Amino acid sequence: MKFELTILGSNSATPLYNRNPTAQILNINEKLYLIDCGEGTQQQMLKFDVKASRIDFIFISHLHGDHYFGLLGLLSSLHLNGRTKPIKIICPPPLKEIIDMQFSFSQTELQYQIDYTFTNSAISEVILDNSDVSVETIPLVHGIPCTGFLFREKKRLRKLIKETISEINIPAEYFTAIKKGADYTDNDGIVYKNDILTTDSAAPKTYAYCSDTSYNQSYFQQISNATLLYHEATFLHNMLDRALLTQHTTVLQAADVALKTNANKLLIGHFSARYKTLHELLEEARTVFPNTELAIEGKTFLIGDE
Amino acid sequence: MKFELTILGSNSATPLYNRNPTAQILNINEKLYLIDCGEGTQQQMLKFDVKASRIDFIFISHLHGDHYFGLLGLLSSLHLNGRTKPIKIICPPPLKEIIDMQFSFSQTELQYQIDYTFTNSAISEVILDNSDVSVETIPLVHGIPCTGFLFREKKRLRKLIKETISEINIPAEYFTAIKKGADYTDNDGIVYKNDILTTDSAAPKTYAYCSDTSYNQSYFQQISNATLLYHEATFLHNMLDRALLTQHTTVLQAADVALKTNANKLLIGHFSARYKTLHELLEEARTVFPNTELAIEGKTFLIGDE
Repeated sequence: MKFELTILGSNSATPLYNRNPTAQILNINEKLYLIDCGEGTQQQMLKFDVKASRIDFIFISHLHGDHYFGLLGLLSSLHLNGRTKPIKIICPPPLKEIIDMQFSFSQTELQYQIDYTFTNSAISEVILDNSDVSVETIPLVHGIPCTGFLFREKKRLRKLIKETISEINIPAEYFTAIKKGADYTDNDGIVYKNDILTTDSAAPKTYAYCSDTSYNQSYFQQISNATLLYHEATFLHNMLDRALLTQHTTVLQAADVALKTNANKLLIGHFSARYKTLHELLEEARTVFPNTELAIEGKTFLIGDE
Repeated sequence: MKFELTILGSNSATPLYNRNPTAQILNINEKLYLIDCGEGTQQQMLKFDVKASRIDFIFISHLHGDHYFGLLGLLSSLHLNGRTKPIKIICPPPLKEIIDMQFSFSQTELQYQIDYTFTNSAISEVILDNSDVSVETIPLVHGIPCTGFLFREKKRLRKLIKETISEINIPAEYFTAIKKGADYTDNDGIVYKNDILTTDSAAPKTYAYCSDTSYNQSYFQQISNATLLYHEATFLHNMLDRALLTQHTTVLQAADVALKTNANKLLIGHFSARYKTLHELLEEARTVFPNTELAIEGKTFLIGDE
């Protein structure tokens, strides 16, 4: 099952040095989940050949503009391009008011329905659950209500051992039941136990998205053992004072989160516009957590496959 | 006096083919006036080296998103980059509510003041008047309240004839009065009439910005003899039905406006996302009004100098 993350933007606050504000596309089993939607996200999708029409779920972490100012434009374009399929937006409650007001003044009646699920930054809860994934909110600490999102891939079906299946000549209509764990009994009454017919599927993967937040341990347990942890890392650690003041995380702190929560891999982003290049941030992170990468626009990460 | 227009975006509705939604920068005597502000305008300014901090006036024609979805991002960035100088926004009244609501939810207290002047699309009025320019609203017809803007350069001072000034040996402290039209009397009581000391300055130029509107003659007289007329031209004329339905103008109609109002030059823009290339639009316009150009992003037009 595909479980891939594409970065559309990773700058904080203001766009600069060809870096756009936060937006990411998570492709889970060929369904697209948009995470945050800074200004210019739809232009970034055109640039990186992401089909906006394929997005069914939009997650907004909080209502600072660099995380949602691209949303109205995207919703408008979907409407103008003929979308009729509903879209689900998971977001802080006031976003509905912001969207409704603007479409009201522009006299836009969307051709598709928006289904809202509102986040509550005080608690962690499962806010989406389908056959591919369950998603929990991660309460973060950032001045205004803010949640991260923890995507847990669903346990996949067991894999058929083709040679055995073929040898026993099992008809295809039994495959689904066998993949789900059933034994097979042939016409002579011989029972073939499931464990000689299948192998276990890979362990489900998780993607933890933590932006924006001050460093704190409140969510460590929830995100432990993430296959991929995205954590904001706005400043180098020599700007710790500024990080504390603005309720952001330094690179060293983000690496420390990855270390303490036993992440498999760390992705850092939400870079301050003061950094023209990013290699210093990467180097600093790797002093604490070697398996770190930069959230560079246009880059796709195959979660768990590296 | 500088009177230059730089195009930052000229697509209609949805961004496509590397064309961004509407935004223009008018440089009048080194002061920057932003006209409309579609999504991604601040990124376009970075790309084309326009200093956002130098903008003191923002004009928003109407509240369709492709004309203002970039405004919140721009205002945020100005704030984050330390602006303290007030900014003036000339716009339909509901825009204030849209801005206030979003900054309220993000708990942003701008470090600078926004002074609003509200447009009334039912009448034409002078909504800005300073030493460089006066600006009138142009009532347009577009389903929701919409105004264009007519920028009239102020009459400039007369030009000194350097040789004569030098010959008579006129002290510099008289220059301003002479430029304003005064005669000069020397120590011997000899009077030098102004017309031998100066030449008239060039006629004041005008820039008429008309977007979005259905074709109608209501504003023809107001914009007559424009040095540069920008007119939306969303569709080729073979899509007249669509233009009528969406209250837009075809290329042929825009050219007809330029012809009938005796514009010096026509600039067409607000191109439908259906046109991957624009040469057909330009050719169609030139069949009626030869002195037409396309509003291409990044291009600067020296108004009246061609």
